[in-house]
Amino acid sequence: MNLDVVFQYQKLSDSRLIKGTAIVVDLLRASTTIICAIMSGAKQVIPFPDAGDAVAIANRLGGERVLGGERGGVKIPGFGLGNSPLEYTPAAVANKTVLLSTTNGTGAIQAAAAARHLYIGALINRSAVALAAARAGQDIVIVCAGTEGNFSADDALAAGAIVTSLLALDPGFVLGDFALCAQHLYEDYREGRLDPNRFFHYSRLAQLGFADDLDFCFREDITDVVPIFHDGIITG
Amino acid sequence: MNLDVVFQYQKLSDSRLIKGTAIVVDLLRASTTIICAIMSGAKQVIPFPDAGDAVAIANRLGGERVLGGERGGVKIPGFGLGNSPLEYTPAAVANKTVLLSTTNGTGAIQAAAAARHLYIGALINRSAVALAAARAGQDIVIVCAGTEGNFSADDALAAGAIVTSLLALDPGFVLGDFALCAQHLYEDYREGRLDPNRFFHYSRLAQLGFADDLDFCFREDITDVVPIFHDGIITG
Repeated sequence: MNLDVVFQYQKLSDSRLIKGTAIVVDLLRASTTIICAIMSGAKQVIPFPDAGDAVAIANRLGGERVLGGERGGVKIPGFGLGNSPLEYTPAAVANKTVLLSTTNGTGAIQAAAAARHLYIGALINRSAVALAAARAGQDIVIVCAGTEGNFSADDALAAGAIVTSLLALDPGFVLGDFALCAQHLYEDYREGRLDPNRFFHYSRLAQLGFADDLDFCFREDITDVVPIFHDGIITG
Repeated sequence: MNLDVVFQYQKLSDSRLIKGTAIVVDLLRASTTIICAIMSGAKQVIPFPDAGDAVAIANRLGGERVLGGERGGVKIPGFGLGNSPLEYTPAAVANKTVLLSTTNGTGAIQAAAAARHLYIGALINRSAVALAAARAGQDIVIVCAGTEGNFSADDALAAGAIVTSLLALDPGFVLGDFALCAQHLYEDYREGRLDPNRFFHYSRLAQLGFADDLDFCFREDITDVVPIFHDGIITG
């Protein structure tokens, strides 16, 4: 089976793999945040590329709900939560619907919605998401969200971590060029040769005061939660 | 000054750097071929994304001329030369105009035509093209041609080699995320950790019988020739 990585979701329409299994990776921070929301007992997460749509649907929706999201890394005014995974505690989201709008990640999820199976992946669930994707038995494309339409090295590194986990499960995957390169970038990072502090998006979040988020997003395999997107809704 | 790598030329319109200096890299094989044509004394090389345009202009052009190019790696029927750099000998091209149409490289050159300075780079001239670009004193974007609209690891590796040469000339360049990653991929290759035989485009050319071309294209710093594109024409 084939395994490739698309380095920004705007390139996804070109991929032949989109009919199989997709894993959306927005390491900093939407993927990590969605996994935390499901870990903390959120009933469901609904992603919205447009923040206005999130507000409109929140007003129509029954049940307990919370608006979350960011623009330029900062919480959207009037929203209950930002895009920090550490905010998505059981006290904040358990049994609630989370309506989430972020700059890159929610667009990436919409772009990959045609996949037969669509999972949310990050470093905190890298082995678990690899196992779920491998079990689906299809070609796999890992979709990096990127940052504002540009390649983002943090997503590529996390995609490479998931490639490494997939190869551990099945060494027979046929890797596309970018999957191979992402795997190498992850290895360089693990060996201390590639420093995330040099990445544009990472360093911007550090400057905005999100050091705790960055530490958390780079932890690996702390959960078996694998969020699944289906019919517009993410569940555990 | 800024230094970034665009992994496929179709993404170039998004880059803020295009107003400065561009280096087009189609390692396998258009960039290497163009450098060889100029090394061998070609009067000029005119790149054509469309092979029909190359034929039409060849018929109108005075002086000695030769048609060169490929589709799917194979010489275009009726053309005098293919896209093998080893064909571009003094006997074949000296004092002639070369009209060249290739699948990826000539499109990349056209896409980068808005740059103030546009050089053709490959591994065989990596240090020389870095020196020429650094002397121009502008932001630099290295434009990978890619393969049929997809990321191609061979171009990224060559771009990383040129990034390494540029940093040796001026450690003060501010690297974009992909420039940083390309530099690491090149280091992995140099240390024998990343094997080009695993790259899609490389292995396809090997299967087509171009092993000598591949060996040649991966040689480094064998020439100081730096082809320059200006007003539709490439000269030395």
